[in-house]
Amino acid sequence: MRESELLRHIYRRSDGLDAGGPIVIGPGDDCAAIRTGAGLSLVTVDQLVEGRHFTPDTPIDLVARKAVARSASDIAAMGGTPIAGFAAACLPAGYTNADELFDRMAHWAQVMGCPLAGGDIAMLGGGQPGPLVLGVTVIGSAHPVRGPVRRSDAHAGDDVYVTGRLGGSFRSGRHLTFTPRVKEGTWLCGSLEGHLGAMIDLSDGAGRDAARVAEMSRVRIELEASLLPMNDGVSDWRSALGDGEDYELLFTVRPGGVLPEKGPGTDTQFTRIGRVTEGAGCFVRTRDGEMVNVAEIGWDHHA
Amino acid sequence: MRESELLRHIYRRSDGLDAGGPIVIGPGDDCAAIRTGAGLSLVTVDQLVEGRHFTPDTPIDLVARKAVARSASDIAAMGGTPIAGFAAACLPAGYTNADELFDRMAHWAQVMGCPLAGGDIAMLGGGQPGPLVLGVTVIGSAHPVRGPVRRSDAHAGDDVYVTGRLGGSFRSGRHLTFTPRVKEGTWLCGSLEGHLGAMIDLSDGAGRDAARVAEMSRVRIELEASLLPMNDGVSDWRSALGDGEDYELLFTVRPGGVLPEKGPGTDTQFTRIGRVTEGAGCFVRTRDGEMVNVAEIGWDHHA
Repeated sequence: MRESELLRHIYRRSDGLDAGGPIVIGPGDDCAAIRTGAGLSLVTVDQLVEGRHFTPDTPIDLVARKAVARSASDIAAMGGTPIAGFAAACLPAGYTNADELFDRMAHWAQVMGCPLAGGDIAMLGGGQPGPLVLGVTVIGSAHPVRGPVRRSDAHAGDDVYVTGRLGGSFRSGRHLTFTPRVKEGTWLCGSLEGHLGAMIDLSDGAGRDAARVAEMSRVRIELEASLLPMNDGVSDWRSALGDGEDYELLFTVRPGGVLPEKGPGTDTQFTRIGRVTEGAGCFVRTRDGEMVNVAEIGWDHHA
Repeated sequence: MRESELLRHIYRRSDGLDAGGPIVIGPGDDCAAIRTGAGLSLVTVDQLVEGRHFTPDTPIDLVARKAVARSASDIAAMGGTPIAGFAAACLPAGYTNADELFDRMAHWAQVMGCPLAGGDIAMLGGGQPGPLVLGVTVIGSAHPVRGPVRRSDAHAGDDVYVTGRLGGSFRSGRHLTFTPRVKEGTWLCGSLEGHLGAMIDLSDGAGRDAARVAEMSRVRIELEASLLPMNDGVSDWRSALGDGEDYELLFTVRPGGVLPEKGPGTDTQFTRIGRVTEGAGCFVRTRDGEMVNVAEIGWDHHA
């Protein structure tokens, strides 16, 4: 079973958790939303595992950066602002770089707006093999006007957009150096307000992640291969939709919502890549006019 | 370097983090406290590692229970109430019990007041050995009147108390079946209010954990071997103070604070075990009248 399928299976039993009570948004979105006093906190947890999300020869600084950035990207995907980070590390036996690792995590957490406020360290003993496992929790605040932007808020008639460009993240090393789209997410909330529909960050490939939005919103999404903004060195729409780990935002905009080509004060472009219709599933129209189901071309950290 | 020393070293660089800003309490206490809107959220992260915190033959239900209970106990140690839990799991290659594991974590999280609102799963590939690693984040609310109860609030003149009884947690299996002292922590806050001083939960042994309170409060703590409440089968004060994983609460009470022998509506006893004086360090007076430094007899998950 794939990680994503397993998670979905597991989360099914939490259905109804967000009906009343302090858990306003439960499992299945980019973040949970918890009512704390008068405020609404966004919470996300992500793991980074050696040999799985980074190779053993990756510089510690980049490991630390990616560990924090993945979770910050989940906050961005809800339109929120990071507040505080928590780092849990399970260290291989004899690991001697813990101090540098936490130093760099503290640095990047500060840069990304979520200074490390706590954490936990466990060390494997000699004779107990195991990879470096980092788990980063980030707490954020929801946008004060819009509130949390969910995956389930796409409507038929919306346009589908992405920030930045897609594909080749692993080959280029961009999966280690991306900047979470926190500024862009916040700007979209403030600028589009009610015209902003659903939003998700792209970790498993724009194809599979768009399919998630379609499923949770109970709509059909049609992407256009000819509209996909691709990174240098990427020429195939399958690569753009399937490579994964772009950490761009995919979002939908209601009819009448007006978007500039770039967010003010940023070089990040916004590109329309498709539309939302009634129905189900996620498809891409190739340049030949063929409709291909993209739900299964995404990447599941099996590369 | 021990885990606790490493964490202390790492957290030193976060000094001053809690001067203004949304991080009201930073690293080094049982939980962090984050200002979110008008409220104050408690946040803690703890890991449970196979071969380290439980043996591979431990029933999944007890693994799940302990993973949640350890973090809930940290919320209890601040006098707080759990709200929501987040479970991150790194699964060994070929692990087939993920569904049962998450089912039981969801169960115990519900029982302990912090239903699972999210999480993450990573699976190790074949040929990549590694233990089961669970990281549980729990979000809680601080006591509405008292606020978070810190480790640093012991004053000279306070009495030192513990809930329940000490020692033998591993031998007896109690480290897998303990109930976090959430009810007792809340009751102490409401009942003692300003007379409640510092509080900590006992994970590394009452000796070492009391030493932490002494250090963070800049006081000296003197415990009495003759007063230590011991579990059945424990007869040695070194065992009572050093065995670890009791998950009882150790707290201090200001002069004039009055405590019943048991908390109302609970069988948990409160026992006075020593006092706080001016000075530094943590010592135990043996039945022979000898003063022994207990700071170094605690348990560091090296058993």
